[in-house]
Amino acid sequence: METLTYRRKVNFYETDAQGVVHHSNYPRYFEEARGYYLEYIGYPYHLVRNELGVDIVLLEMNVKYKKALQFGDEFDIVFGITDINKYFFTFEYKVMINEVLYAEGITKHCCLDIKTKKLVSIPPEILTGL
Amino acid sequence: METLTYRRKVNFYETDAQGVVHHSNYPRYFEEARGYYLEYIGYPYHLVRNELGVDIVLLEMNVKYKKALQFGDEFDIVFGITDINKYFFTFEYKVMINEVLYAEGITKHCCLDIKTKKLVSIPPEILTGL
Amino acid sequence: METLTYRRKVNFYETDAQGVVHHSNYPRYFEEARGYYLEYIGYPYHLVRNELGVDIVLLEMNVKYKKALQFGDEFDIVFGITDINKYFFTFEYKVMINEVLYAEGITKHCCLDIKTKKLVSIPPEILTGL
Amino acid sequence: METLTYRRKVNFYETDAQGVVHHSNYPRYFEEARGYYLEYIGYPYHLVRNELGVDIVLLEMNVKYKKALQFGDEFDIVFGITDINKYFFTFEYKVMINEVLYAEGITKHCCLDIKTKKLVSIPPEILTGL
Repeated sequence: METLTYRRKVNFYETDAQGVVHHSNYPRYFEEARGYYLEYIGYPYHLVRNELGVDIVLLEMNVKYKKALQFGDEFDIVFGITDINKYFFTFEYKVMINEVLYAEGITKHCCLDIKTKKLVSIPPEILTGL
Repeated sequence: METLTYRRKVNFYETDAQGVVHHSNYPRYFEEARGYYLEYIGYPYHLVRNELGVDIVLLEMNVKYKKALQFGDEFDIVFGITDINKYFFTFEYKVMINEVLYAEGITKHCCLDIKTKKLVSIPPEILTGL
Repeated sequence: METLTYRRKVNFYETDAQGVVHHSNYPRYFEEARGYYLEYIGYPYHLVRNELGVDIVLLEMNVKYKKALQFGDEFDIVFGITDINKYFFTFEYKVMINEVLYAEGITKHCCLDIKTKKLVSIPPEILTGL
Repeated sequence: METLTYRRKVNFYETDAQGVVHHSNYPRYFEEARGYYLEYIGYPYHLVRNELGVDIVLLEMNVKYKKALQFGDEFDIVFGITDINKYFFTFEYKVMINEVLYAEGITKHCCLDIKTKKLVSIPPEILTGL
């Protein structure tokens, strides 16, 4: 799997009373990484919708928490696409600071036709980037 | 101003690393209170849109923070409507635990026609509740 | 697995531009359900910390999305505890409206001593509720 | 008032079912801008706490919404500090895309001693940046 790296800083409002990033923010970080990927390959989300006529939908997500991010931390999401078949694909993510793994996760997706809301095969344009 | 009371508990994910509710949640609590008001008067938001054909829009918001809410706190939002004229109205909120004031705020609103997105006079239905 | 049911309404601020609840809110709903469980068994979180001297920590989470919740929906989280051993336990959740499954998920947890931050065996008090 | 500019992109999870950025995110954007200011002057928040021994506290916030931000928008927060006296100061913010004003707001602050939680005079270090 080829990977891309998305760098991000923790915002204060993402922390909780345990003094660390609340776990519900990791899916948001992953979403930012996917947006970064789509821009990187030249298909930002509005083009996916307007040119390709599909919505990318989230079917499942999994996160394993290893070490807690804190306010002020700058971290990398190293991520890529795997398990591609005609209808489904999976993003894999590692949240890293330097060589230390803080969390890892996956999100599974498919594409729906914008109008009919029916499952369609994945447009090749959105998978050719990595 | 007649008032209504909306009771709410603090969720853990609403706290921040200072150990208290993050200030950006108060506008969310106020929005919940407005939703509660619309249900109370029998015009939940989907009816405002579908029957009255308007969107209620937020123009301005102000919050004064007096005392910090913490995880586990159960608080009341005591609120009502004021400064009503043909096009604009204001909600006023007090965040209270028993007789202690934790925060107070206002939100100013107008109504837009759903289709034209133009300013329209406030439907009397949504102001007759209090 | 015995289950408990936590009822909740969707807030407007939990929706996204696809018109449905953003997926990052489900982990927050699950956290609310866990808080409800702890109150139900008479060990609200501050007692877990102050009397039992442990923090309940999230190690992993998984969510499968079946059907999208929308603003105004009132849903149930039917949930319970499973896979209990000396150090680890798992919550299982089903997000339901009437008999329809909207999402299901699990969260895996352990307990850390508040002071040493070391793994400790699960206090029996927090597992006897269901 | 001298100003600094903080550039930011809208994230998808910040939108709501009206298709625009939910109003509760603007206070979060303002907080990010304040963090950027503190780094810009060489006093990131952990130094404010550890070296100066104070917490910067939010007392009041006001936001006027002019035009709605949407997913994909890249915007500037042009901001500065005003109304400084011994104990209080105010940040002023303008949310801009090119020359168009989307929102404007203020936040009022004071400093508390970390240990005593008492009001203290503003450390000159945190105001000399602009």
